[in-house]
Amino acid sequence: MAIMEHTVNIPAREAGSYKISIGTGILDSLWAKIEADFAGCNKFVVTDENLVSAGHLGRLLGRCEVPTYIISPAGEPSKSIDTLISIIETMEKAYLGRDTIVVGLGGGTVGDIAGFAASTFKRGVPVVHIPTTTVAQADSAIGGKTGVDSTMSKNAFGAFWHPAAVYIDVAALATLDERQYRAGLVESVKHAVIADSDYFAFIEENIEAILARDNAVLEKIADCNCRIKGGVVETDPNEQNMRRMLNYGHTIGHAVESASGYELLHGEAVAIGIIGAGLIEIEVGLAKDGRLDRIRQILEKLGVPLELPQDLTENKLIDLIKRDKKAVNRWPKFVLTSRIGQVYCPNDQWAVDVERPIVGKVLRKLL
Amino acid sequence: MAIMEHTVNIPAREAGSYKISIGTGILDSLWAKIEADFAGCNKFVVTDENLVSAGHLGRLLGRCEVPTYIISPAGEPSKSIDTLISIIETMEKAYLGRDTIVVGLGGGTVGDIAGFAASTFKRGVPVVHIPTTTVAQADSAIGGKTGVDSTMSKNAFGAFWHPAAVYIDVAALATLDERQYRAGLVESVKHAVIADSDYFAFIEENIEAILARDNAVLEKIADCNCRIKGGVVETDPNEQNMRRMLNYGHTIGHAVESASGYELLHGEAVAIGIIGAGLIEIEVGLAKDGRLDRIRQILEKLGVPLELPQDLTENKLIDLIKRDKKAVNRWPKFVLTSRIGQVYCPNDQWAVDVERPIVGKVLRKLL
Repeated sequence: MAIMEHTVNIPAREAGSYKISIGTGILDSLWAKIEADFAGCNKFVVTDENLVSAGHLGRLLGRCEVPTYIISPAGEPSKSIDTLISIIETMEKAYLGRDTIVVGLGGGTVGDIAGFAASTFKRGVPVVHIPTTTVAQADSAIGGKTGVDSTMSKNAFGAFWHPAAVYIDVAALATLDERQYRAGLVESVKHAVIADSDYFAFIEENIEAILARDNAVLEKIADCNCRIKGGVVETDPNEQNMRRMLNYGHTIGHAVESASGYELLHGEAVAIGIIGAGLIEIEVGLAKDGRLDRIRQILEKLGVPLELPQDLTENKLIDLIKRDKKAVNRWPKFVLTSRIGQVYCPNDQWAVDVERPIVGKVLRKLL
Repeated sequence: MAIMEHTVNIPAREAGSYKISIGTGILDSLWAKIEADFAGCNKFVVTDENLVSAGHLGRLLGRCEVPTYIISPAGEPSKSIDTLISIIETMEKAYLGRDTIVVGLGGGTVGDIAGFAASTFKRGVPVVHIPTTTVAQADSAIGGKTGVDSTMSKNAFGAFWHPAAVYIDVAALATLDERQYRAGLVESVKHAVIADSDYFAFIEENIEAILARDNAVLEKIADCNCRIKGGVVETDPNEQNMRRMLNYGHTIGHAVESASGYELLHGEAVAIGIIGAGLIEIEVGLAKDGRLDRIRQILEKLGVPLELPQDLTENKLIDLIKRDKKAVNRWPKFVLTSRIGQVYCPNDQWAVDVERPIVGKVLRKLL
């Protein structure tokens, strides 16, 4: 039978860019800058109750009246479709249209939700991130990954939605809960391990100042993180290949985080995942320099727990690893390093095959 | 204070394209083609109970076992976030990863949901559309608009997500409910009114054969629709300007559809919206050729109701128009024509300002 064919051409999307601004105490004068940088747009703020009680929302908005959604309770359990629905309906009730910009003020959860809400609201409006935690400033505010969790897995719903701007005030970290603060620094350690041995040495040398939340040192760390993550993201914005290096420690980490019922913080789970990746490197002969000891030492100084919760089993973790977003035929590839500051990248592949028995053996060592 | 700045560059996204294939009875051999065209991907089918009972799902899959989500009940009330959640969780339970392609088999509702599920599942997987209704074949399967409704408005959640391929089998229309069949043809009339006076004349001359569901005539109509809509979409894929012409009749139409509590079908509401646009054209002096009579005649022959439900008020409709997705400062622009086949486009603006009193006057005429 005759088949007629039409071809619909999708034009190229032009290159774009966004700025990340880093400073100490910039929050107090930021709203005027956002109003100027995004004039003519309605603004809608997404934040959480922690940011309100810490005074950061007040510092940002001053006397400006801006429609705002306050996520409550703060944290991963609110990173759900229910919260997304509630945000979108709040925006609708405020008669907001496509001429709106969403401003996310908060940690990783706030940023992921705010970004995803922006990406889906009336088929997409811009988002601006003001990350206020170690994990968000180092990682989640940069790179355009957004999403919310399903009952079964993290970020089961999501979109790549690059921000229009990112503003990092390291002074906002002063009010962060100690456990959150330390766990979030794991992503900085990860950046150093995969991309920059000098940065790794800087963290080793300045660990006391980091834990004391010295603003000058925190600015330097933010600077390194943005340089490393921004550089990777602009090379491979939609995670076709190189960007997968950022997943170091995350394949086991995500499974551990999920298996703990999110009792472990993301950074804590990733710390265990980094140890797991280091153990895999030993198993496959990539770790003759004994670097895992140096990495373990710094994670111990950060004071993140490096043991798995007691009730986890190898089978449970393997099942969760099979569900990894990037799994192909129910098994993901793993990011490994060849030395501190360098990802193992044979044939331009930034994530490599690791057989299940090796992963099983490593998991038994972690358990 | 010192502010450090980084710039993150987002590379251009390369141009792409997708094919629309049109034929009669192609459904029976289509699955082999999809398996060949998208080899190496897991497939996941989204459809609804009407397609199952009409036998189309069976015709598509034959004896192939493919994980499938069947939307129930069929229709707009299922176009909700709840259905989205259910689909994503079904995909997760099937251990599907990013190497999955979603195949939407059905009408506009199925396509919108399937496309939105594909756009959000693990931050996005491809979608293939197999539209089986007049409205989906003419309109919704082409162009990448996806979404689900909130309790307050249509497509409040959504994304632009271009399909990887579209397959149109006009023989699938044979089983379509008469009311749905006729309402869906309104989008074909719209295409003719905004873009092609010859196509409009063809519809006028062949209205009996169209209503008798003559496959040869339906192929010609599908061909015209794909040429017109595909042409507009590739010029302006993300609705920056020209694509807005496709919104002809939809500004009032969407308000009417929503105000009717979705008792009116989309095409029925758009038919009223097209009459509304024609009345606005008369008010603003764009309709000296009396073309509204020709348009009204064809809509009457299609047998779509052209009166508003009784309990609607002007205020209710105005409030809904203010909430239009494309509203700026709570008032949308309107698409108008200067003759059949030609959108009124002063200064390259495909949608123009119409003052509220004029819209109010037209609504009172419609009520």
